[in-house]
Amino acid sequence: MEKLSIVKIGGNIIEDELSLNVFLKLFANLEGKKILVHGGGKRATHMASKLGIESKMVNGRRITDADTLDVITMVYGGLVNKNVVAKLQALNTDAIGLTGADVNSIASERRPVKDVDFGFVGDVKKVAHQSIDKLIQVGFTPVFCAITHDGNGQLLNTNADTITSQVAVGMSTLYETSIYYCFELNGVLEDINDKNSVVKLIDTKRYAELLEKGIIADGMLPKLENCFDALRHGVNTINMGNTSMLTQENDNFTTITL
Amino acid sequence: MEKLSIVKIGGNIIEDELSLNVFLKLFANLEGKKILVHGGGKRATHMASKLGIESKMVNGRRITDADTLDVITMVYGGLVNKNVVAKLQALNTDAIGLTGADVNSIASERRPVKDVDFGFVGDVKKVAHQSIDKLIQVGFTPVFCAITHDGNGQLLNTNADTITSQVAVGMSTLYETSIYYCFELNGVLEDINDKNSVVKLIDTKRYAELLEKGIIADGMLPKLENCFDALRHGVNTINMGNTSMLTQENDNFTTITL
Repeated sequence: MEKLSIVKIGGNIIEDELSLNVFLKLFANLEGKKILVHGGGKRATHMASKLGIESKMVNGRRITDADTLDVITMVYGGLVNKNVVAKLQALNTDAIGLTGADVNSIASERRPVKDVDFGFVGDVKKVAHQSIDKLIQVGFTPVFCAITHDGNGQLLNTNADTITSQVAVGMSTLYETSIYYCFELNGVLEDINDKNSVVKLIDTKRYAELLEKGIIADGMLPKLENCFDALRHGVNTINMGNTSMLTQENDNFTTITL
Repeated sequence: MEKLSIVKIGGNIIEDELSLNVFLKLFANLEGKKILVHGGGKRATHMASKLGIESKMVNGRRITDADTLDVITMVYGGLVNKNVVAKLQALNTDAIGLTGADVNSIASERRPVKDVDFGFVGDVKKVAHQSIDKLIQVGFTPVFCAITHDGNGQLLNTNADTITSQVAVGMSTLYETSIYYCFELNGVLEDINDKNSVVKLIDTKRYAELLEKGIIADGMLPKLENCFDALRHGVNTINMGNTSMLTQENDNFTTITL
């Protein structure tokens, strides 16, 4: 099976022009077929505040009312996505910017209201891996922002990590897929106070040990649960670390496999 | 040669949810391969004013400083484009939203400063008709907004009418192309005070007569000059009228041919 890399960058990289430019060069140089996924939450919060729209968060998740969805559509789908595409084109990567509505690539359903009404937030229902592959097959590099749609004309705000893992799962019927989650840490850390204490390999057995020792907790726990879920659904490897893991020179990051 | 329709809608249709929905149904029902091009100037002006950015116009053209370009990228490339794509998907049209940066489809160069510095405004240099055709060939319907790029990472604001005619010219090496300019009038009018006095057919000879009689003047003159330029460069027919010209029931619009 041919290889496909799915790379996700968070708000910290997008926020900072220099970091973004450095990252995009690494991404452009990454060999083989690839997909980029980006969020952009901080810029959306900033733009919302400029427009006098209050950003409401519950448990770290954004409540997306109609005005907030418009801001997200403008910032993720327009400002961030199209500038990233233009920068990648300048680096000879034939990028194409997408939401889940484009080529009906990611269908979701609005999250049902239980304790909290998250508003226009979508949970991924179906990834159209064949439509995405049509773009890849003719030589384009998809750049997804964190927006999906319900198939009835409604755009929905969707977590970028979830989009990454769901797209990777979908594409793994056609490719040997690897995810690269680029974030501010060097990887999963044995000692949260030592940024170089990277756990280089986590498989099912090591994961159980780390859980038992309490090394994986808080925000890292759901992230890793999602990783193992993606691996069980066909993703080959998942890597977590800073952007330099995309080069062959840095091997100080975390790789997760079954 | 297979037929390809390139349909352009202006700000008046985009501005009004109901008009937009009616139009998109007509567009979705239009048979054969097709491309949509939209502007969105009024919504951009509105958003700029909300953000405290002054809209400066010279001879009806927007001066695009860096802040204004961000607004245009958010509104055209994000808000308008992605909502149009989601609505078309709901109408079973497999739309894909694009700027000229996506798949490097429309390269432009920043307009040189003469009397006026228009800022980040691009004049179209090259339409990558083969890249656009790759999307069409696999079954997608491109939806262009009025943004291009310079190939060096810079997005540029570009007139939507120009994008329409340049894309049509580019595609006419592969298809028999027809442009549909949807606007608020029923077509080119013999008597500007009689909205039903539509000139149904304008060819080179009739155009000379209309010019001589002074019937074509003011804003219509550059529009028609652009039309004849596109026709001379390979476009087959150009139609001007209200959106109902996309149906077979209305034949009260203007068709322009050589």
